[in-house]
Amino acid sequence: MKRNVLIIGAGGVAQVVAHKCAQNNAVLGDIHIASRTLAKCHAIIDSVHAKGSMQTKGVLQAHALDALDVEATKFLIRATHSQIVINVGSPFVNMSVLQACIDTGAAYMDTAIHEDPLKVCETPPWYANYEWKRREACKAAGVTAILGIGFDPGVVNAYARYAIDHHFDQVDSIDIIDINAGSHGRYFATNFDPETNFREFTSTVWSWENNAWKANQMFEHRKDWDMPVTGVSTTYLTGHDELHSMSQHLGVPNIRFWMGFGEHYINVFNVLKNLGLLSEQPVRTARGQEVVPLEVVKAVLPDPASLAPAYTGKTCIGDLVKGTKDGQPAEVLIYNVCDHEASYHEVGSQAISYTAGVPPVAAALLIAEGVWDVGGMVNVEELDPAPLIAQMNRMGLVTRIRHAAGDNVLDPVCPVAASLGDDRQGELKYG
Amino acid sequence: MKRNVLIIGAGGVAQVVAHKCAQNNAVLGDIHIASRTLAKCHAIIDSVHAKGSMQTKGVLQAHALDALDVEATKFLIRATHSQIVINVGSPFVNMSVLQACIDTGAAYMDTAIHEDPLKVCETPPWYANYEWKRREACKAAGVTAILGIGFDPGVVNAYARYAIDHHFDQVDSIDIIDINAGSHGRYFATNFDPETNFREFTSTVWSWENNAWKANQMFEHRKDWDMPVTGVSTTYLTGHDELHSMSQHLGVPNIRFWMGFGEHYINVFNVLKNLGLLSEQPVRTARGQEVVPLEVVKAVLPDPASLAPAYTGKTCIGDLVKGTKDGQPAEVLIYNVCDHEASYHEVGSQAISYTAGVPPVAAALLIAEGVWDVGGMVNVEELDPAPLIAQMNRMGLVTRIRHAAGDNVLDPVCPVAASLGDDRQGELKYG
Repeated sequence: MKRNVLIIGAGGVAQVVAHKCAQNNAVLGDIHIASRTLAKCHAIIDSVHAKGSMQTKGVLQAHALDALDVEATKFLIRATHSQIVINVGSPFVNMSVLQACIDTGAAYMDTAIHEDPLKVCETPPWYANYEWKRREACKAAGVTAILGIGFDPGVVNAYARYAIDHHFDQVDSIDIIDINAGSHGRYFATNFDPETNFREFTSTVWSWENNAWKANQMFEHRKDWDMPVTGVSTTYLTGHDELHSMSQHLGVPNIRFWMGFGEHYINVFNVLKNLGLLSEQPVRTARGQEVVPLEVVKAVLPDPASLAPAYTGKTCIGDLVKGTKDGQPAEVLIYNVCDHEASYHEVGSQAISYTAGVPPVAAALLIAEGVWDVGGMVNVEELDPAPLIAQMNRMGLVTRIRHAAGDNVLDPVCPVAASLGDDRQGELKYG
Repeated sequence: MKRNVLIIGAGGVAQVVAHKCAQNNAVLGDIHIASRTLAKCHAIIDSVHAKGSMQTKGVLQAHALDALDVEATKFLIRATHSQIVINVGSPFVNMSVLQACIDTGAAYMDTAIHEDPLKVCETPPWYANYEWKRREACKAAGVTAILGIGFDPGVVNAYARYAIDHHFDQVDSIDIIDINAGSHGRYFATNFDPETNFREFTSTVWSWENNAWKANQMFEHRKDWDMPVTGVSTTYLTGHDELHSMSQHLGVPNIRFWMGFGEHYINVFNVLKNLGLLSEQPVRTARGQEVVPLEVVKAVLPDPASLAPAYTGKTCIGDLVKGTKDGQPAEVLIYNVCDHEASYHEVGSQAISYTAGVPPVAAALLIAEGVWDVGGMVNVEELDPAPLIAQMNRMGLVTRIRHAAGDNVLDPVCPVAASLGDDRQGELKYG
């Protein structure tokens, strides 16, 4: 039974994590939020209190922390008696926070792969460049580390696992489809940090085709999908974190990630990219100032957090899985639909933050209850997906399945409520 | 008889001015080039020698000068015995160079209206905000100052004057049409300094309609024209310098300026403008650096001078004049077509610089010969256009006229060759 959560980061996802931890603090215990900017932690705490999100009276505290500083992070974990760390800071701090967890025994979670700010990691699988090098250290220390437990990566990994286990004898392909059919009403904005956002699209697009890595360019491959709620949605083949673990763990020959883009987004992106304004390499102005163009683009774009109040519409993210069952071709789409306005009303963040922030708290509850406290480093597809899906269904992030028989809520065979007394850990695929 | 020319500025237009002065140095005398960056003056001088442009052996010298410094400019005018100053520097230095000419008695010319770098001048007519305030000072000192003697403003003002004097009893409208049907082969570039270029399009578009100023937005009004050589050409109503003097001097109720833009240019411009990247107001990056977005855009765009070698295609710029003659509706188009490759071959600059750089040298020859040495401040439409047109015809910038009778070279009734002995000054409209 682990208790007390330390949230690292104070952006839009951290806001959701804090609210959801607060809504479950009877199980999770004390909640601490740490960021370089203390004021952002306090703003989140104010929001939690304003919306009355605390399930029961308890500790909710802000801390200033440079999460690149391993010793400072260890000190804070110990001082707050935190046994669960949810890292939703920038992808640059993953390795230092993970090390602090290994050294203190706290369970670790994050929602994206570690990145070095100075390079765009080019060699797949990306997890092998950083996180997986600490796998043995986690095992030796008995430290639970669940990598990439946001929505994508995270929930989509669990969906893939669930489809493989319950709907197929053999799986040929998994297409992860991420549609944001919402509207923020601004000329142009990114839904999270523009720097992180654009980095995702300026490097090589890796996909997993016929059991091998294939390199493509961004916006090279377009595909329209008929999606629930959002309708026919245009997507482009995009590189994404989850491919780098699912390709290694699932034995499926084709795994691709498709992100929805409107023509307007692509046009603005292409103009900026072709002009060199997305470059991380400094240029010199006529007045002799050294400037990184991407930092200037970030400075003129709206702060993603500022979009939430006016955001309308829905997201639809899911896995379209194809293969065979009982000798017949089979296909299922396991997905979630999330509403921007409803998310903002509940926790003060839009749906993109909501879908990324609920899963690590669901996972924290599973760790707290011992269901997912596996004592080693795993990616999400290595864990039993049923308790996660059941837990999220109860937390406002409902999973649906569309298959030959129709389209209905996915109610996993082993809901957490029933499993909490079991020793379900013994059934996990991890090991 | 004025002699010895000081060229201020060392950009693409200055390069053309230097070559054309050199080609006529038997009349013009010594040639001096001054710029903040001495190396750019030397590069121009090297180009003049490389192409053998000097008509006769003579002085061609480079000087470092901050043209905002009136005393330094006066010193250089006197030290070089220059009696003619051709200012083709940035529009920020007009007033200081003009003052230096008033104080030293040198004839002054420029090719654009003075601008304050800190503001976009909004009150028309723009000439009244700066230049025309020195009109009396010029008259008192007997100093010839010809404002805006590039192609547009400049030659198009002369075309308007010529049309009014020779082809109409009454003129209803003058549409100045500026088409660049050339291609530089780059993703995006501006044809002159991006800062100056974008400033022109981000402020209010003033046009002269029914004898009054009318404010429009950029890209609000589109019009396609059937132009010689370039064919059907898409233009947008644009604000431009010449409207601010022609509206005051010609008694024509409608004067408009139309600039040709391709869809791609407009798209890039709109993306940059809507994102706030064309702003002259500093923004602060996440790292705390103060940066002017427009300066960063300028830094990532190609140097306009670098485009010339690969530039192909032609420009077509002219005045479409409509009115009545002998009680019948009449229409003429007076225009020039200039070829990018031919311009580069002759003087090392493309057609846009060529069309802007030849007219002030033609005017310098007219001042040197006394034809245009009017001893006061004038805009080009106040001068007899015939000698200018005749002189340019001989210098490689040929004027054509399209009217009911056909399309032919415009050979003015009073060619300079014949007029040089006349006292044509007495016939000028100026006074």
